[in-house]
Amino acid sequence: MIIVLKPGTQESDIDDVCRRIEGLGLRAHVSRGEQRTVIGAIGDDRFKTRLQALEALDCVESLVPILQPFKLASREVHPTDTVIEVDGVRIGGLELTIMAGPCSVESEIQLRTVAEGVKAGGAHILRGGAFKPRTSPYAFQGLEEEGLKLLSEARKLTGLPIVTEVLEPDRVELVAEHADILQIGARNIQNFSLLKEVGQCRRPVLLKRGMATTIKEFLLSAEYVLAGGNRDVILCERGIRTFETATRNTFDISAIPVVKKLSHLPIIADPSHGAGRRDMVAPMARAAVAAGADGLIIEVHCDPDRALSDGAQSMFPAQFDRLMAELRIIAPAIGRSICLDPVARRGWGS
Amino acid sequence: MIIVLKPGTQESDIDDVCRRIEGLGLRAHVSRGEQRTVIGAIGDDRFKTRLQALEALDCVESLVPILQPFKLASREVHPTDTVIEVDGVRIGGLELTIMAGPCSVESEIQLRTVAEGVKAGGAHILRGGAFKPRTSPYAFQGLEEEGLKLLSEARKLTGLPIVTEVLEPDRVELVAEHADILQIGARNIQNFSLLKEVGQCRRPVLLKRGMATTIKEFLLSAEYVLAGGNRDVILCERGIRTFETATRNTFDISAIPVVKKLSHLPIIADPSHGAGRRDMVAPMARAAVAAGADGLIIEVHCDPDRALSDGAQSMFPAQFDRLMAELRIIAPAIGRSICLDPVARRGWGS
Amino acid sequence: MIIVLKPGTQESDIDDVCRRIEGLGLRAHVSRGEQRTVIGAIGDDRFKTRLQALEALDCVESLVPILQPFKLASREVHPTDTVIEVDGVRIGGLELTIMAGPCSVESEIQLRTVAEGVKAGGAHILRGGAFKPRTSPYAFQGLEEEGLKLLSEARKLTGLPIVTEVLEPDRVELVAEHADILQIGARNIQNFSLLKEVGQCRRPVLLKRGMATTIKEFLLSAEYVLAGGNRDVILCERGIRTFETATRNTFDISAIPVVKKLSHLPIIADPSHGAGRRDMVAPMARAAVAAGADGLIIEVHCDPDRALSDGAQSMFPAQFDRLMAELRIIAPAIGRSICLDPVARRGWGS
Amino acid sequence: MIIVLKPGTQESDIDDVCRRIEGLGLRAHVSRGEQRTVIGAIGDDRFKTRLQALEALDCVESLVPILQPFKLASREVHPTDTVIEVDGVRIGGLELTIMAGPCSVESEIQLRTVAEGVKAGGAHILRGGAFKPRTSPYAFQGLEEEGLKLLSEARKLTGLPIVTEVLEPDRVELVAEHADILQIGARNIQNFSLLKEVGQCRRPVLLKRGMATTIKEFLLSAEYVLAGGNRDVILCERGIRTFETATRNTFDISAIPVVKKLSHLPIIADPSHGAGRRDMVAPMARAAVAAGADGLIIEVHCDPDRALSDGAQSMFPAQFDRLMAELRIIAPAIGRSICLDPVARRGWGS
Repeated sequence: MIIVLKPGTQESDIDDVCRRIEGLGLRAHVSRGEQRTVIGAIGDDRFKTRLQALEALDCVESLVPILQPFKLASREVHPTDTVIEVDGVRIGGLELTIMAGPCSVESEIQLRTVAEGVKAGGAHILRGGAFKPRTSPYAFQGLEEEGLKLLSEARKLTGLPIVTEVLEPDRVELVAEHADILQIGARNIQNFSLLKEVGQCRRPVLLKRGMATTIKEFLLSAEYVLAGGNRDVILCERGIRTFETATRNTFDISAIPVVKKLSHLPIIADPSHGAGRRDMVAPMARAAVAAGADGLIIEVHCDPDRALSDGAQSMFPAQFDRLMAELRIIAPAIGRSICLDPVARRGWGS
Repeated sequence: MIIVLKPGTQESDIDDVCRRIEGLGLRAHVSRGEQRTVIGAIGDDRFKTRLQALEALDCVESLVPILQPFKLASREVHPTDTVIEVDGVRIGGLELTIMAGPCSVESEIQLRTVAEGVKAGGAHILRGGAFKPRTSPYAFQGLEEEGLKLLSEARKLTGLPIVTEVLEPDRVELVAEHADILQIGARNIQNFSLLKEVGQCRRPVLLKRGMATTIKEFLLSAEYVLAGGNRDVILCERGIRTFETATRNTFDISAIPVVKKLSHLPIIADPSHGAGRRDMVAPMARAAVAAGADGLIIEVHCDPDRALSDGAQSMFPAQFDRLMAELRIIAPAIGRSICLDPVARRGWGS
Repeated sequence: MIIVLKPGTQESDIDDVCRRIEGLGLRAHVSRGEQRTVIGAIGDDRFKTRLQALEALDCVESLVPILQPFKLASREVHPTDTVIEVDGVRIGGLELTIMAGPCSVESEIQLRTVAEGVKAGGAHILRGGAFKPRTSPYAFQGLEEEGLKLLSEARKLTGLPIVTEVLEPDRVELVAEHADILQIGARNIQNFSLLKEVGQCRRPVLLKRGMATTIKEFLLSAEYVLAGGNRDVILCERGIRTFETATRNTFDISAIPVVKKLSHLPIIADPSHGAGRRDMVAPMARAAVAAGADGLIIEVHCDPDRALSDGAQSMFPAQFDRLMAELRIIAPAIGRSICLDPVARRGWGS
Repeated sequence: MIIVLKPGTQESDIDDVCRRIEGLGLRAHVSRGEQRTVIGAIGDDRFKTRLQALEALDCVESLVPILQPFKLASREVHPTDTVIEVDGVRIGGLELTIMAGPCSVESEIQLRTVAEGVKAGGAHILRGGAFKPRTSPYAFQGLEEEGLKLLSEARKLTGLPIVTEVLEPDRVELVAEHADILQIGARNIQNFSLLKEVGQCRRPVLLKRGMATTIKEFLLSAEYVLAGGNRDVILCERGIRTFETATRNTFDISAIPVVKKLSHLPIIADPSHGAGRRDMVAPMARAAVAAGADGLIIEVHCDPDRALSDGAQSMFPAQFDRLMAELRIIAPAIGRSICLDPVARRGWGS
């Protein structure tokens, strides 16, 4: 942390700031410029949150943090890419991982039809929501436990591992019985109780960025999970809230290379929520792969016009197939590939 | 809901859209303009979320909602102002309600000193955090249950009712034993499990707007609490996230009159978080009152430079006193007043 | 400027960075922390824009500017408040300055009626647009030179000085013949040619913050005018663009105390554009004054429902009168007042 | 335009609104729902800006525009893609157009070296700034007319057409003598005088989206140029301002398919400004092409660490070559290609 003092600060005030820094167990290093004196507080920045109170001292102009506040999530501490394996599917390696399925699990027949469709199209993991966080208390809230059972059956049928959202700390255990990957939704990115709970779970966690979450805060939320002991965190960019209303969110594609630089964790993209409209899912999906995403999570529905949630942004299976063909052309441009028959390759009987 | 069709839409497509609307139990009303045909879907908009799937039809240009999606929170359904009474203190009436106290409960002596200070300054309710949501897993997370007990003791000592934050659904009961008002923090504005839980609690709820929450979503979150049966919701504007970095948040003062127009619920302001810097708390507090807020919640600390959290934005007791004097001048400009000796007036022995 | 190096940077790279800093005529000051080495570039930050290229060096993690990039606008260089006098009206002193009038000059009768109305209500300066910047090429673009002449006549009639917008560098001279204060609109906040031109003009400049302008950029735009030789700059907060769509803009009331701290220039507020809706103008106006604004600029129209522009946000004269009465109560809370009969006091014969 | 009335609006008020609508030469069409009465104002929305004053009537809840406010820029009026030809280079067709060169023209040798480098790499058009809009009055402002001459010489030497920025209406003619395409920068997106001036010029215009410009406003600014008579407008996405500070701007990749749907005009992307950091230019460039952009404009510098402006975001020529190779793999995924030797193909003698 660097403490910038106001011009004309007296020596007695400089001494006072130094004493306060040292009182927190850090060293103070004074540097006098032509117009400003700055004091470096040397030690571990991650334990320096209490320095922030200095900001309100009359002689202090501003505080400038030097170190990133996350540690386990940082590439500094863990320089090589983390690759997570889920039932034979690898996330974060050279091959891209495609997760696809309906927004909500609605019925056995709906889930089975979509699951077989996306498997045929080349998806590696099946997505589907059993517990749905909805902005309005009057909207469809999911099939809940019944939905989890349908997901388990779909896995048996197709061999695809399952990713589904968990909303509450005391449901983590239940969801983990049925799901291979636990999804934390955008609205829960700073639900720290939930982050701590999945941090103690044996399942990989798919962590979606919140609508107003900075990349730094995103990695700090991952740090909560990692600090709990669970090292298998998959990050997911899904769009941020901006002034633009032509799209439901602004898909922050630049977050992908920024996260890749700061962190060793895999990052995938959710073009369905990032775009919010079916005709924009394919362009955003291609863009995310071209920008370096490790995979995608895509909403597909066989009858999206009648879907109980997110119908407008769900792709038809044929659109999903066409997108997969396009991605197979793009992936080699960045030294990546897409496994063609993932389930068969994992030795799952056809 | 109004469905705007693309120019040149054929009659067969118009018929198809009408059939889909009627299939959801609504009536369709076609209106042909010079350049656009629009179809009104008549019935209760609040149950029309499934209409959104129409947005993806090829012939549909856009969907335009006509009704507000919240109902119990709306002034339409409940035209007169809601006034909430907490142990003799009224929130939402002609008198302004001032809540003040430390960010975190740190110790018995710290809490007692601040509580007596703000009581002397004229505060009506004591604030103080026992469970602290922190962006970093390495920051001070609060005294937890011990903090709750210290708050109970401070109430006994000063007679001030207590407002404190609850973070998890399964702690609501515990916090409600010690607190008079349950605070839902900005990060939990769409933690629907928590909203449902406090919706079934007997305590008033202080609901803080999230950093990226629109006013419509803010009122929908209130709707979750109201729909659960708890009609005592106090809204709180505390700043939103924008591109400006000179302040920690952008205090959205215009939300106050907008909410007043849309809803009957009281709305107070949190200038401490809205500003993020001690020297800006008083101007923002005065502005909020001048804009029509029903009260304020303010962080005060006797030694903010050494506070365990939010020191930079905590006022000194003397600053709080000066602010109260300024507010007593401003309040009459909008036909409000501030009760001078609230505890005594409630018959609490001095 | 502080250059933060990546962990593990080699001595040869540190030397290279130092050589580059010294090559720009600055001194390099190396400081080694436990986890990071930082290098201070000492000299005048304002001429250090070329240091930014260092950001792309492999060994550089980030650059941290220490000094504010503006100089003439800063309170550091000019500690006391600037007070600007326009034909006997003072802007930036203890008395608040109220500018009011129609959005657009529409006709002689319209302008005269509004001008007499706002004068009676206590306004000190008359506003009115002759050249209108409009988002659509098909909207009313103002009466142009004819509008300027009507403004001149209104001044003769009422004694109120005139503020009006100038859009183009080659019209500055023409507008300055008719106007007492030249307004630079939000869309031109970084029209540097225009800023340079009014910097050489003898008229005070009212500079409106742009929709996405940070406070730092706002003061840098003021710096363009000041650097041109014109020291009479009045800043104006008028709302920024955020994700919230319930209001046309988000009125950034916190900008007022921030600017007051950084700069000696007067700052007024435009609650009409900040709110965008007539019923929110009064609350925002009161809030701005309570937050410390030096004055207001308000749109008033005698028949706003038929106004050629901005009708929805224009106040009726009676609303303006009521607002002035409220402001007279609020102003003393912060040690300010509002002159009651400004024109008479300036010796302007009635 | 649809006017939504408040619940309980009386018949006399409904009649009054209808009369006002008809007074503007439009037809009123009343539709009564269960909870709301809405009135459609039928006629040409583009001339309905005066309807906005209705928003402030007591009985009006909101106004909902139905038609897009732009016309010449819309795909509705002009369904097929516009292809612009500049000296043999086509923009908006099946082949992607790559514009590259230094941020600023700094010297003859600098410009020549970069121009030959990007030509060798496969660029089709040379970019370079002679007039530079700079946030600070103390930053390098460009070589101005001398820079224009150097650009003319570079065209003679390489055969590459030139794109360069024009800042002021009265310089349009001068810049058009030297440039093949006139660039309007992000800060001038609503400098309507400049838009009108280039609307009367014979050169194609490259129009960059502003930092806080919605897509609708972006197309309205294009409409200004088109309405002036110049039909050759190339749109350019270059990033918007959001809360995220890890990147200089948030590159709004979703704007590309949205604009493609609404408008027939070609749209290219500026990944250099969109990203703001050299190591992120290639991922953003690939993403833009994958999302459907018609081309790119990229900053390249032979010695970016010493560039007079934007050094941190300028690519080295070798990075540019590598990017071009990646783009040649990606383009076929969306049915596009990149011309390999554009200058030779146009018959320009080597």
